Amino acid sequence: MTIFNGYEQSDREQKLDILNLPSLEEEAKKIIPTGGFGYISGGSEDEWTLHENTSAFNHIQIIPRALTDVDQPSTDTEVFGLKFKTPIMMAPAAAQGLAHSRGEEATAEGLAEVGALMAQSTYSSTSIADTAAAGKGAPQFFQLYMSKDWEFNYSLLDEAVKAGAKGIILTVDATVDGYRESDIINNFQFPIPMANLAKFSEGDGKGKGIMEIYAAAAQKISPADVRRIAEYTKLPVIVKGIESAEDALLAIGAGAKGIYVSNHGGRQLNGGPASIDVLHEVAVAVNHQVPVIFDSGVRRGSHVFKALASGADLVALARPIIYGLALGGAQGVASVINHLNDELKIDMQLAGTKTIEDVKKAKVIRK
Amino acid sequence: MTIFNGYEQSDREQKLDILNLPSLEEEAKKIIPTGGFGYISGGSEDEWTLHENTSAFNHIQIIPRALTDVDQPSTDTEVFGLKFKTPIMMAPAAAQGLAHSRGEEATAEGLAEVGALMAQSTYSSTSIADTAAAGKGAPQFFQLYMSKDWEFNYSLLDEAVKAGAKGIILTVDATVDGYRESDIINNFQFPIPMANLAKFSEGDGKGKGIMEIYAAAAQKISPADVRRIAEYTKLPVIVKGIESAEDALLAIGAGAKGIYVSNHGGRQLNGGPASIDVLHEVAVAVNHQVPVIFDSGVRRGSHVFKALASGADLVALARPIIYGLALGGAQGVASVINHLNDELKIDMQLAGTKTIEDVKKAKVIRK
Amino acid sequence: MTIFNGYEQSDREQKLDILNLPSLEEEAKKIIPTGGFGYISGGSEDEWTLHENTSAFNHIQIIPRALTDVDQPSTDTEVFGLKFKTPIMMAPAAAQGLAHSRGEEATAEGLAEVGALMAQSTYSSTSIADTAAAGKGAPQFFQLYMSKDWEFNYSLLDEAVKAGAKGIILTVDATVDGYRESDIINNFQFPIPMANLAKFSEGDGKGKGIMEIYAAAAQKISPADVRRIAEYTKLPVIVKGIESAEDALLAIGAGAKGIYVSNHGGRQLNGGPASIDVLHEVAVAVNHQVPVIFDSGVRRGSHVFKALASGADLVALARPIIYGLALGGAQGVASVINHLNDELKIDMQLAGTKTIEDVKKAKVIRK
Amino acid sequence: MTIFNGYEQSDREQKLDILNLPSLEEEAKKIIPTGGFGYISGGSEDEWTLHENTSAFNHIQIIPRALTDVDQPSTDTEVFGLKFKTPIMMAPAAAQGLAHSRGEEATAEGLAEVGALMAQSTYSSTSIADTAAAGKGAPQFFQLYMSKDWEFNYSLLDEAVKAGAKGIILTVDATVDGYRESDIINNFQFPIPMANLAKFSEGDGKGKGIMEIYAAAAQKISPADVRRIAEYTKLPVIVKGIESAEDALLAIGAGAKGIYVSNHGGRQLNGGPASIDVLHEVAVAVNHQVPVIFDSGVRRGSHVFKALASGADLVALARPIIYGLALGGAQGVASVINHLNDELKIDMQLAGTKTIEDVKKAKVIRK
Repeated sequence: MTIFNGYEQSDREQKLDILNLPSLEEEAKKIIPTGGFGYISGGSEDEWTLHENTSAFNHIQIIPRALTDVDQPSTDTEVFGLKFKTPIMMAPAAAQGLAHSRGEEATAEGLAEVGALMAQSTYSSTSIADTAAAGKGAPQFFQLYMSKDWEFNYSLLDEAVKAGAKGIILTVDATVDGYRESDIINNFQFPIPMANLAKFSEGDGKGKGIMEIYAAAAQKISPADVRRIAEYTKLPVIVKGIESAEDALLAIGAGAKGIYVSNHGGRQLNGGPASIDVLHEVAVAVNHQVPVIFDSGVRRGSHVFKALASGADLVALARPIIYGLALGGAQGVASVINHLNDELKIDMQLAGTKTIEDVKKAKVIRK
Repeated sequence: MTIFNGYEQSDREQKLDILNLPSLEEEAKKIIPTGGFGYISGGSEDEWTLHENTSAFNHIQIIPRALTDVDQPSTDTEVFGLKFKTPIMMAPAAAQGLAHSRGEEATAEGLAEVGALMAQSTYSSTSIADTAAAGKGAPQFFQLYMSKDWEFNYSLLDEAVKAGAKGIILTVDATVDGYRESDIINNFQFPIPMANLAKFSEGDGKGKGIMEIYAAAAQKISPADVRRIAEYTKLPVIVKGIESAEDALLAIGAGAKGIYVSNHGGRQLNGGPASIDVLHEVAVAVNHQVPVIFDSGVRRGSHVFKALASGADLVALARPIIYGLALGGAQGVASVINHLNDELKIDMQLAGTKTIEDVKKAKVIRK
Repeated sequence: MTIFNGYEQSDREQKLDILNLPSLEEEAKKIIPTGGFGYISGGSEDEWTLHENTSAFNHIQIIPRALTDVDQPSTDTEVFGLKFKTPIMMAPAAAQGLAHSRGEEATAEGLAEVGALMAQSTYSSTSIADTAAAGKGAPQFFQLYMSKDWEFNYSLLDEAVKAGAKGIILTVDATVDGYRESDIINNFQFPIPMANLAKFSEGDGKGKGIMEIYAAAAQKISPADVRRIAEYTKLPVIVKGIESAEDALLAIGAGAKGIYVSNHGGRQLNGGPASIDVLHEVAVAVNHQVPVIFDSGVRRGSHVFKALASGADLVALARPIIYGLALGGAQGVASVINHLNDELKIDMQLAGTKTIEDVKKAKVIRK
Repeated sequence: MTIFNGYEQSDREQKLDILNLPSLEEEAKKIIPTGGFGYISGGSEDEWTLHENTSAFNHIQIIPRALTDVDQPSTDTEVFGLKFKTPIMMAPAAAQGLAHSRGEEATAEGLAEVGALMAQSTYSSTSIADTAAAGKGAPQFFQLYMSKDWEFNYSLLDEAVKAGAKGIILTVDATVDGYRESDIINNFQFPIPMANLAKFSEGDGKGKGIMEIYAAAAQKISPADVRRIAEYTKLPVIVKGIESAEDALLAIGAGAKGIYVSNHGGRQLNGGPASIDVLHEVAVAVNHQVPVIFDSGVRRGSHVFKALASGADLVALARPIIYGLALGGAQGVASVINHLNDELKIDMQLAGTKTIEDVKKAKVIRK
């Protein structure tokens, strides 16, 4: 264990024997300090949307298929011109130093090992360069919380480009932080500095609450910002936090090269629909003009299948991967992805789908 | 603590550190005597409608919006030609002396401080004049439980006009009291006199149960009564307790200048729909001819948002405010409104709405 | 307490202070012996239909009405040419000696006192003549479980006619007994003789289980039986246990003068719909050709209202009345009816309905 | 008790006094060792589909009927040219030696006694010949888990033909095993050899987990396999594990003489619909071209009725029968079928259906 600034960080490094992803939460809770765990696990207001995110997967039912002449399904896929061993990816979650002393470096390392896409948050505990290096050349995306200060934005984007990022995820659903009661109960303030903020005058985030951190962020994001970032970086910009056809079209019109359907894991606007409940409608609007990434509530191989069958090209999750990080470092992260991918393969076989493209075309029942 | 007639009244006066409104109930229960608490918190019959009032907000889902170029949302609004800092207002609840020794005076003071509308009940613990004075010039409405005795009605209306009331809320859904089991279990009788009843021969309400109090009320209210009150006072009459398009149109036809959609917080007819489930249909019938006030079940900023997006111009609540009154007097009342308004502002920002007018036009999902 | 054949019968006689009907079950359970209580309270198979019978009332919502110029609602009604003080009646439940030493005599006495219709079961503990006498001239119906032995049937019908019965309820949904697990668990056998069976060779029912009792009943009932009974008695025949438009029309075609919608309180076919869920469709088919009686699941004034608004002319219940019988004899029975009728009156007032005819025409929401 | 390879097998032989089938699970759990019980009772992933299988029967409601002139219903039926005393049959469940020392022999004996169809699994504990002999000439089906090794397949089919099997059930929904967490928690490996595997090089299954067993199975099944088996055996081939009209039509096109609608009792693809929820649609597609067998979730007579009324010709179940086997051997198996058939008869009578053909035509409500 590493004690940093009074905060006990896990420094475990081991493969995990995983029964299922939901069971990781209980284990991780034992070793992540209360404030950090509350920040990672919590949602906003009464957490209705947080819980609905997962239970709403039951609104979609996979039809078992047989006699389809399918075996040995493969989860290999190509999206954004990049090849992955799995459609499962890391959602760009902040402050992974809360879970492990190596933070995002270990996450990137574990993901690279299993051929899954890493997305790094602006508010990461390790720097863009260090995280990139840990990924050993595997593709990474950089997620931007747009600041009011464009010098800051340009500086981060410069670093991302320099580090070889393959895409920029622009988060648009967090112009103010959701009302997260667990952080208030725990009076949570980030004990670990945020590497990307360190060189700026506002400080490195250490000792601040999420509300203060977000205060530096832009409270107003418009299509012009999407275009500005795309032109500046020449990288594909994926707009994250889309829950409506309207926003998807605004983003594509502004030059977005990807739509990221998410309600921020139930951490922002509570009282909105489960993210999986809007995915299909958004995907219909996107109409294959650009790839679609989905997150919020994914815990099972069948969830990944249902998201793909509803229009997603990549399916992201964060909390279970962070629990794997706490429990096993880079190897723990790899174990989580492997387990979930194994569940997905079973589902693919039993649904008569041989490739990820087949899954995307699979008929499902929507209730 | 103040002991009045053997009843222990809170006399706290302090700002409250509020996590959320539902959590206030537990705290308030500790300091409000059993009979008073049962009267305030209870509903009728098996309380199905009471509970449905709040859970039915999940039938409506707010769509998170981004890329809408919105920041710094404002809750300022103008209704009935009156300006408020928030669309949240006090529902005209009876007998607030049950919660605090200063009763409605403290409530009015707290609301005035935060720019929210006070509505005072006929059955208030403090008089019309005293409550008005405590409001320091902020607008107030007076709520009338119409008596069989028109002398009594005229006398109260005279007082209200004299005290500067800006509108009369005529309650029409309580011509007999709902079957409230907690009052029966507690054998509840009002321990505190009702100031507005004091000068009349029926007595001041002290030592009576709600059934006896209501017995003096008119059991029959017709459109003609609406017209009579409007003509007598020259004030806008808002008809409260409307749950159908039919009643809304009857009221407007009779000269009502406002429609107040409410099922009395689940305290009257049990087995009817959640109030939020009928709001939209009633608002469509009203068709912007007059403003719409809504109450019943509101506990969250997202509830306020959903009510506004379903046709309300003002959104009222009572129980949580009364709990704030018990726990903190006028400052407690202000704390409750501030907290709820802060939740609302977060929701407005995350739903891409800058003004209350924007919220009213926001697209929501109705299940 | 009376000990009969080793079975402890209540002989209480007192008015009851009733909070609500559901709360009577708990109290009655304390004084009715286990086997008798299981027989009275239980349903068939896993009791899904039993529970659905009550919870399905939430599928219907009463719309509160105001400004309707209504006060002082009256529950007086006239059905089958008979005048009642309430539309609430006794369902023809068997073996009330299980609950009270005076059995159906006390029930009839209590109902007569409050102007409610008594219906006596073939399997009653007291005889047709004795029950009739206890009713002091108030109208009664006699319910027939048709035997395979027509001598027996004619004999009972003769007695009923002689005793002045105003109608014959022919039960058609019990040609075999439902699979009632509580009777099996308790190895229940009737400890009290059934007065109407006493003079027949099969014995008086004492020491038999319900399966044996029903074994003597006809397992096959056809429209011709309805006609036969009507012609023999010259009394209106009401066919009980109808849950479909098809059976209602068959019955009317056969000369039935009333349709009794019931699933036997969830005691017969489990896995069928809640009775309230089919009432409206059946009533539409009946199309006012004959009156409709409804039972199954009624516990609240709002339930009575909803049944009337869905097509019923009379609303029956048994279990809560039997619990009242156990707890207070004839006075207990009267207390139950009075309480339920009081709840109904409140609901009528708050829904803007002045008469039972108004309730029947009230608009409700069906989910 | 028999100790085999350290595993405690029941060797009880007795009639059972059954209250209902769900209650058998609790009793059986006490005498079946943990690993075996987990294997028998468990489902896949989070068992959503397992539980939905049973609760979804509430989506269908049987309409009680009367005045239909029906009595003495009979459960005799003829399907596949074979006569049975009941439409209830044994689903082809593996490894019944886990429950009883006599395994499938006792099951076959018990079923023969009550005139119900036995279906034996490839992975049975007793051999095809021994199981057939125990059935004393009653019809049996043999279920094939198709191996990659056709020599193996032919050998088993030869044995089945020789033993007089009346049909071959080809399971197509298990080309990989579902993700069953209880087996993983228990680290379950089959302690009892599988008789039909004993002569092959892969071993007899003893000491292997289900994943290893399934590894020898074909992961790819196509319509051509159906045809190949039909041609080789000249027996009717029933394709098991169909949950869609598409697969049903593929199977019939390939020469299937029966469609077996099943989701493998919730043990294979989790996140799919309850089997009863797709039965009607599949049966409509089958359009009486071939008989339909149904399983998954059946526990009650009313479930059997609902499945028949939704298109099934035979209704199978396994877990409750295996619990009966553990608790009472062959007599226990017979007791389970008898009890369930008795519940069915009551339901038939109360729904006005005299024959199984009547049940198939009965009108039900689908929600």
